[in-house]
This record gives sequence, structure tokens and C-alpha cells, in this order.
Amino acid sequence: MQQSLSIQHLLDELEKLPGIGPKSAQRVAYYLLNSSAEEANRLADAIRTVKERVTFCECCFNYAEADLCDICASDRRDESMICVVCEPRDITAIERTNEFQGLYHVLGGSISPLQGITPADLHISELLSRLADGKVVEVIIATNPDVEGEATAIYLSRLIKPLGIKVTRLASGLPVGGELEYADEITLGRALEARREL
Amino acid sequence: MQQSLSIQHLLDELEKLPGIGPKSAQRVAYYLLNSSAEEANRLADAIRTVKERVTFCECCFNYAEADLCDICASDRRDESMICVVCEPRDITAIERTNEFQGLYHVLGGSISPLQGITPADLHISELLSRLADGKVVEVIIATNPDVEGEATAIYLSRLIKPLGIKVTRLASGLPVGGELEYADEITLGRALEARREL
Repeated sequence: MQQSLSIQHLLDELEKLPGIGPKSAQRVAYYLLNSSAEEANRLADAIRTVKERVTFCECCFNYAEADLCDICASDRRDESMICVVCEPRDITAIERTNEFQGLYHVLGGSISPLQGITPADLHISELLSRLADGKVVEVIIATNPDVEGEATAIYLSRLIKPLGIKVTRLASGLPVGGELEYADEITLGRALEARREL
Repeated sequence: MQQSLSIQHLLDELEKLPGIGPKSAQRVAYYLLNSSAEEANRLADAIRTVKERVTFCECCFNYAEADLCDICASDRRDESMICVVCEPRDITAIERTNEFQGLYHVLGGSISPLQGITPADLHISELLSRLADGKVVEVIIATNPDVEGEATAIYLSRLIKPLGIKVTRLASGLPVGGELEYADEITLGRALEARREL
């Protein structure tokens, strides 16, 4: 197949993205070729900017453009509750439900012996430091409802309960084996509302 | 929803792409956030480069990185046949079949009174100029098998037949109402093989 080198290069890069196969890559590439240079470069700039500006929140390890993320920096959040999630994208999913006004803590994954991820690889000691001042009365564990997520939840509850802090878990209602990121707002909102103590 | 500004901006730009909804945009954005700056910038650069380097072939209006596209510049193509397509992406689809060794001509669309696209908006006069030297013995019209594509095919055949040039059309076998871009190689290859004279 004859194909311009720089088009082929763009196709190669697009196909690396999750959920983008050869046909979708081609569709996107031709869309970019058809659009104005200004429009296409807006996307290129958005990618560059996000990599330049976005780092991790010093407190909760969410994505942030300053030392603290918008949520940790806000004075309108309930500091007595911390919701523990695996990844920053899970925060986006929970924020979308509008059911939670507390703070978050991103673990950076879940305990998985098969993938060689141990508790030491996660931001667990930082979570325990946040709990030390006695302000937090409840920790909601919102790890994924799969084997690793459940194991992580149990591990955390054993660490946190002895501190006299209530530990809860998102209610079942989430499809088991699924991923939190893809749950719809209503299901996730209900699961949050009906969270059960561990 | 609390979301970093530059992440929101990237999501907005990604959602403009064809076939990318809010969930896929989020998946791609988080993938880019997780990948190294080098990797993410390779995609940004590929987008910029393609817009800087790729223009239209002076002869056939395919995408090109020089005055002529790779196909027009090649001395291994059969100059006695021209395959007329609506868009450059249709060339990619036909090249993938490995059934055609001739040259191409991109119209830049199809005649569509509803969308206000008249023959004057398409590269039809340039096609006629290419046919003037008498070298071409067959023109294969590979416009989409939909109403506009058929109308364009009939319009072109009425212009080209009087020049004593054989005019053919891709065989049916392509799903009517569909788009050439999404046909699989085998169907498209067979359709090319069994093309019928108009």
C-alpha cells in the first residue's frame, strides 16, 4: 500500500491509543487531514500542555496542575471523609455522581501479587499519615469490585479500623469483575449511598 | 465535576474526533497522562508534522508530501487506467486490495444538490485534462455506491464516453448505501475485478 510517510507515522501513533484500531485510526487521521491546521494543532497542543502542566497532588495523588489538586485545595469539601480509589480516573467517575463531598486518596493501583504490586508500591503510608491528626471520621474504600480491589479493601480496613476510624466499602450493585471507571452515574451513586461497613 | 483545566481541554479536543465519545476520550486522555511525556509528544508531533508536510498531489489530488503523490510519481503504475474516487481515503482502501496497478483521480467529493456540491466544486475539469492526451484507455469510476456516488458516476460517464474512452464502474457486491472506506479487502477486490461498463 502506498501511503505518505507522515500519514503512516500518525496512523502508527494513533493505533497505540486504547480502543483505537486500524480503522478508527484511519478515520481520525483523515479527519485531521481534512481539518484546518489550526484545529489539528489545537489537539497537538492540548496533548503537549497536559504533559507539561499536569503532575500529582502532593496530598492525595490525584492529577493536579499545582501542588494540590482542585479538590484538596477547595475549602468546600468535607475534611472528615476520605474516599480511597485506585486511579485518578476513578475520582472523575465518583465526582460525576455528585453524591460525595469529601476528599480523596489515590493508591496508584491495587494489591496484586500476580503483577508484583505489593502494599509498599501503593500510597498507603501517605494515607495513614493523613489519618493521624484525628480529623477523619470515615474512610470509604472505592477500589474496583474485583479480586485485587477486594483484597486491597480488606488490607486497608485492617490497618485503619484499629485507629478508631469507620471504614466503609462501596455497596454491591456494581457488576462484580467490572471496572469502576465504566459504571454509569446512577449505579455508582447508589453504590456510594448504600456503602457498607467493613 | 472537579477536573484539571488542561485535562478538560484535552478531553474537549479528543471528543471532536470522529468515533470518539466522552468515555473513549477519557480513556485516551488517562492513557496519555499515564504514558511518558516522550510517548505522548510523539503523537502531538505526528499530528503537527502531518499538517505541515501533507498537501495535495498536483496531478490526482491524493494526499502528497511533494508536488506529486507516491502513486503519480511511481514509474511502475499503468498509465492507461485511471480510477476515479471521491476522497483520498478511498485510494488507501483500493490499494489495500492489490488488484489495481493504474493511477487515481480524487474528485474531492460527489455531486450532491442537497449539500450544494455541483460538478464545478469537484476536480472534474482536471480529470478531463488528464484524459486529453489519449494515453488513457479506461476510466474506472469508484465513487461510493450511494445516490450521490451513482449520480456522479453517470455524470462522469456522459462526459468521458464521447472521448472514446472505456468507462467502467465497480461491480455491485458492495453493500448499497454503504461507504467504500469500510468495505473489506476481499469484497472490494471482487467488486474491482467484476467491474461493469456503463
